[in-house]
Amino acid sequence: MIVKMRKGARPEDIQAVEDKLHELGYQTGKLVGTEIVLIGVYGDVSQLPVGEIQEMAGVDELIRISRAYKRAAQKGDPTDRRYVHFPVGNVMIGEDLVVIAGPCSVESERQIMEAARMVKEAGGHILRGGVHKYRSSPYSGWEGVGADSEESLRRGLEWIVKAGREYDLPVAVEILDHTKIHLYEDVGVDCLQIGEPNSRNTVLLNALRETPLPVIHKRANSLDCEAYLLWTERMMTTGKENIILCERGILGPNKYTRNTMDLGTVAAFYYQLTGLPVAVDASHGTGRRDLVHPMTLAGIMAGASVILVEAHPNPLIAKSDGYQALFPEQLKNLVEAAHIVWDVRRKTDALYQPSVVFEPQYEKRVEADRKRFFG
Amino acid sequence: MIVKMRKGARPEDIQAVEDKLHELGYQTGKLVGTEIVLIGVYGDVSQLPVGEIQEMAGVDELIRISRAYKRAAQKGDPTDRRYVHFPVGNVMIGEDLVVIAGPCSVESERQIMEAARMVKEAGGHILRGGVHKYRSSPYSGWEGVGADSEESLRRGLEWIVKAGREYDLPVAVEILDHTKIHLYEDVGVDCLQIGEPNSRNTVLLNALRETPLPVIHKRANSLDCEAYLLWTERMMTTGKENIILCERGILGPNKYTRNTMDLGTVAAFYYQLTGLPVAVDASHGTGRRDLVHPMTLAGIMAGASVILVEAHPNPLIAKSDGYQALFPEQLKNLVEAAHIVWDVRRKTDALYQPSVVFEPQYEKRVEADRKRFFG
Amino acid sequence: MIVKMRKGARPEDIQAVEDKLHELGYQTGKLVGTEIVLIGVYGDVSQLPVGEIQEMAGVDELIRISRAYKRAAQKGDPTDRRYVHFPVGNVMIGEDLVVIAGPCSVESERQIMEAARMVKEAGGHILRGGVHKYRSSPYSGWEGVGADSEESLRRGLEWIVKAGREYDLPVAVEILDHTKIHLYEDVGVDCLQIGEPNSRNTVLLNALRETPLPVIHKRANSLDCEAYLLWTERMMTTGKENIILCERGILGPNKYTRNTMDLGTVAAFYYQLTGLPVAVDASHGTGRRDLVHPMTLAGIMAGASVILVEAHPNPLIAKSDGYQALFPEQLKNLVEAAHIVWDVRRKTDALYQPSVVFEPQYEKRVEADRKRFFG
Amino acid sequence: MIVKMRKGARPEDIQAVEDKLHELGYQTGKLVGTEIVLIGVYGDVSQLPVGEIQEMAGVDELIRISRAYKRAAQKGDPTDRRYVHFPVGNVMIGEDLVVIAGPCSVESERQIMEAARMVKEAGGHILRGGVHKYRSSPYSGWEGVGADSEESLRRGLEWIVKAGREYDLPVAVEILDHTKIHLYEDVGVDCLQIGEPNSRNTVLLNALRETPLPVIHKRANSLDCEAYLLWTERMMTTGKENIILCERGILGPNKYTRNTMDLGTVAAFYYQLTGLPVAVDASHGTGRRDLVHPMTLAGIMAGASVILVEAHPNPLIAKSDGYQALFPEQLKNLVEAAHIVWDVRRKTDALYQPSVVFEPQYEKRVEADRKRFFG
Repeated sequence: MIVKMRKGARPEDIQAVEDKLHELGYQTGKLVGTEIVLIGVYGDVSQLPVGEIQEMAGVDELIRISRAYKRAAQKGDPTDRRYVHFPVGNVMIGEDLVVIAGPCSVESERQIMEAARMVKEAGGHILRGGVHKYRSSPYSGWEGVGADSEESLRRGLEWIVKAGREYDLPVAVEILDHTKIHLYEDVGVDCLQIGEPNSRNTVLLNALRETPLPVIHKRANSLDCEAYLLWTERMMTTGKENIILCERGILGPNKYTRNTMDLGTVAAFYYQLTGLPVAVDASHGTGRRDLVHPMTLAGIMAGASVILVEAHPNPLIAKSDGYQALFPEQLKNLVEAAHIVWDVRRKTDALYQPSVVFEPQYEKRVEADRKRFFG
Repeated sequence: MIVKMRKGARPEDIQAVEDKLHELGYQTGKLVGTEIVLIGVYGDVSQLPVGEIQEMAGVDELIRISRAYKRAAQKGDPTDRRYVHFPVGNVMIGEDLVVIAGPCSVESERQIMEAARMVKEAGGHILRGGVHKYRSSPYSGWEGVGADSEESLRRGLEWIVKAGREYDLPVAVEILDHTKIHLYEDVGVDCLQIGEPNSRNTVLLNALRETPLPVIHKRANSLDCEAYLLWTERMMTTGKENIILCERGILGPNKYTRNTMDLGTVAAFYYQLTGLPVAVDASHGTGRRDLVHPMTLAGIMAGASVILVEAHPNPLIAKSDGYQALFPEQLKNLVEAAHIVWDVRRKTDALYQPSVVFEPQYEKRVEADRKRFFG
Repeated sequence: MIVKMRKGARPEDIQAVEDKLHELGYQTGKLVGTEIVLIGVYGDVSQLPVGEIQEMAGVDELIRISRAYKRAAQKGDPTDRRYVHFPVGNVMIGEDLVVIAGPCSVESERQIMEAARMVKEAGGHILRGGVHKYRSSPYSGWEGVGADSEESLRRGLEWIVKAGREYDLPVAVEILDHTKIHLYEDVGVDCLQIGEPNSRNTVLLNALRETPLPVIHKRANSLDCEAYLLWTERMMTTGKENIILCERGILGPNKYTRNTMDLGTVAAFYYQLTGLPVAVDASHGTGRRDLVHPMTLAGIMAGASVILVEAHPNPLIAKSDGYQALFPEQLKNLVEAAHIVWDVRRKTDALYQPSVVFEPQYEKRVEADRKRFFG
Repeated sequence: MIVKMRKGARPEDIQAVEDKLHELGYQTGKLVGTEIVLIGVYGDVSQLPVGEIQEMAGVDELIRISRAYKRAAQKGDPTDRRYVHFPVGNVMIGEDLVVIAGPCSVESERQIMEAARMVKEAGGHILRGGVHKYRSSPYSGWEGVGADSEESLRRGLEWIVKAGREYDLPVAVEILDHTKIHLYEDVGVDCLQIGEPNSRNTVLLNALRETPLPVIHKRANSLDCEAYLLWTERMMTTGKENIILCERGILGPNKYTRNTMDLGTVAAFYYQLTGLPVAVDASHGTGRRDLVHPMTLAGIMAGASVILVEAHPNPLIAKSDGYQALFPEQLKNLVEAAHIVWDVRRKTDALYQPSVVFEPQYEKRVEADRKRFFG
């Protein structure tokens, strides 16, 4: 943390800030510029009374110089990077490509059973399906088979778990209510999902840090990529690590697509900022069945190792979001294509060189190049 | 709802769509253009199986032509507009200007008592203060006096209610957990607040439609103004009407202010779209104490009848968001200024004429004016 | 400028950066933290070869700590603030409220003459009207009377200048083509306007720094408020100061309004960042005639001293943007209301106190307050 | 176009609108719903006086139902899709993958000559380099070798053309000033580029429709994808077709990357909306050299057939944007990887099936599936 003093701050103001910081137990250093004085605060500043310092006479602003998330980062330098691996049921996340597919919502026992078969036949690894749904309109007439009561929720969860067991697929289900976590665990759900509108739901995130189940944490559509990591970090303060990040579209200028997929953040997460596995959800990211294929593949190319895809045995009668659900044949083709792209990324990753390896050799040439180019 | 058929759709495709709609019990009409056929669907389409229609052969897209929110609108035409009025404690909302002020968080019994006195002395009407707080970082070290347990939550609520009673101020407190609504009611909180990160929390909104307490519903920073009304509408399906809309800043291009206050939406809500009272929260909207004053006043001018302002007996030692809390003297001055602006808006509203009154007279002049201008 | 070294940077890397900076003629200082070393660079860093430093071994990032715009700021500290005043024709900008009004486009000699009378009768000060227009579609069929040739441009300009002279109103006209500046000057236009799509047009901005005419510089809808000042600054490098900033709406989540008016930036500009006069254009900011009234008034309350309003003698036959043009009676009422609000802002400004005056007294009370609140 | 009448519009209002439309030469149709009447307007509505209709008594809003851009679309139905192919120098665009690479700016004759060699050796097809640059700050100290005068501009252009000829690479150079198009043509530039800040520069776009040279049109960072096509369309009204669309990042919530790459729009353009070739510029899209590799590859996967990449013989001494320029070895590796991905996309495209082929078979199963799923 750096405390930047105002131009014209008096020596006694500067002294007062240093005294205050020492009193609070921090060590400091000072940079005296021609116009501005900066005071560096050393050590862990997470408990620093920021507001109080900010208000002291002569203080201009506080500049944070280290990243606020620590556990999500899983690394200091690129060289000591540690990627996290963990199982969802019997499927390992963070190693090979993992396909999570299924309908927007569990609509009946038979429907989810057929959906599970569809996912299995297409080569998917994990079955997804919502039991209690988010809907933006209270008049949609459908909030999931589990919306009405604890019994209906349990029954819906049992249907999807049964379907998953039948086809040897772990199941992932969105959770809306923190008081229901134990129910999900009891019924045998293998993975919980935090939906986009709940991305910053403190109570839910706090409760989830206690569950042993892995969690898919969808990014809120207005969150800066690093701010999002900080919300994820909230679940990790207990040491929990089995979390999948998920990009599903941000707010952008387009009307043609439902959201704007931010694959640059996927690349930043995978190649630079975090060791957590990254998923892409092109179904919500585009909101159009006819764009799910290319955008899922682009997502893998950008760094995703998990893909979330909505698919339905017959999207024409889906009770929600049918327009973005793939037909079974489309899912099959997409999974096949996804594996092709995944294999290719290993080759292209071998060709991806962080710039740092080139710097020393070019640094040595700076003077010669400058002379050659500019005389 | 209009079903737009593709250019080149076959007559049998068009017939099939009409048949399907009739079978579903809808009446239809048809517009046969030179290139495109449109099928109009009459009546209440809230239960229309949109996905299924969208997928039928020859269908291009479905165009919604009426507003999805009904209760929040409180009106059909501007002429039969109905504004909602309701009490928060003994304070009437929707008539005169109402000032809701107080610290970001209740920090101690003494602190909130002094805060209440400050609010009363400044001329505020309702005391606000958070007991369990949202924080974007899990390392902030402060999530409110009520963060740890149900007892601590109850104690924090009791403090602020006691402070409110002492100074005859109803109290408004943010609620994060739907299982705690009864606790808030029991302790005597007068108004509940839904924070911005919870703006689309289905479980919380669903639970709140059962409480008799008024609710301040903050707008999520990425929500289109009409989509926001639809989330508010979720609380109104039971007939609940005592809801205050609140603009507190959206995602925009600026770094200088914490958020971007969208006062155009305040004006659209008050003058056109809804009969619910509209609040502005310039503390979060700007995130800077030094901009709260002008932006609160601008908010009143745009149509707000409720202002939310963070203030603290001594912001220098505030445990959260001190940088956006007003000093007591600033609050006093702002309340005085707010009343001046409020009085002025009555005058300026008398000068505000919806264009509709001018149309007939100008319509009559169209030909003459056209001749005069363009010969 | 601060050079932040990576965690684990070697002493020789740090030394190399310092050597390089000294070699480039800069003085430096150093903050050696527990994990990170910061190197401060003193003096004017506008010529610092940022890229080269950034690439040196061990460098993490460069942190800029002073504002990049200087002339637009017109001030160092709030205390030595200097507001700019200058004339547009015979109208003084930066003192009293100034109303710039007129049709989106000059459509005929007669139309602009009647528009001028309308503006005069309503109490407006400056007449506006476009002669060569921006249109987002090439098929709009109307790009202004001056779109076709230099002669048509000259004729259109002559019409509006004549209309302005007739009613003693200076005229403001948008300029699209830098090669036409002299034509505008010759014909007698009093003020040039840079439209939103041209906000970052380097060639046009560079050319405008040479004209003695005042310029209205509209903000691009995606520009951060401080980045916008930097584009304005481009015109000021010659010492030019007669520039009016103009907020006319940014990109936001709404569909209901054409753009999102960012009045927080108006407040930041007027009360904090710049001494240049600030205008609001609620016609484009809302894109709806029925919201122009409240949002113009809110803009004045936020800090604007100039208002831009589109109005037309008969908006029903306007060739462009008629839906956002006021009827003559509406303009009259708005100007009357605007003056009322302007007068009120003087009163409310007297009640606006920057927090700095309170800090010393509260700083003194910090310990006592802390003891009182937290025991 | 549909004219939506207000709820409660009087029969005479509806009649008046119909009369007006007939008088203007349009045919109409009518949908009389239970609450709302819609009037359909047939034929080419590009000359419809929208404003006048919008203002008529009883009119609520005008709903546009067909796409406004026509030439950019190059197609009516997906089945009669026509992709455009055209040469840039001797390189064919729209068939195989094309790599456009080079430094941000031409800095000296020697530097661009070495850059050309670098591009050739890496397997690039077209050399890029700016001669007169856009810079957001007037204090950057570097606006390109051609910024000062027509002679310096000519000399800079000659350098890059010479370098291109030497290594058999066509050259692409950004143009800022419409009065200089002939100079670019004379010197032998093979392709012109419109930079992002000029994306909506009417004067420049109008002038470019007359040049035989191909044009790269960068998308403005705040433009909806279809609105962007409409600006491109402006250049096509003369029949011009040799235009490359270019996605280079939009305004989004992130601070970590310079912009947010919108690859969903790339997919929508290539697979659905237009027959024009689509380029991705990950150098500006991410603003970070270390993300250019994965995001360029993701862009190809999303549908791009042209990649723009900034690279420099020694980025450490680049005069502008060095932090986003690749080192020569990185460029080589990226081009190699790009070809691998390009080849793979042919395979994955073969697996991409538009949903339409599945609809009839699933439509037939709707009743049976509904019975099976829901009993």
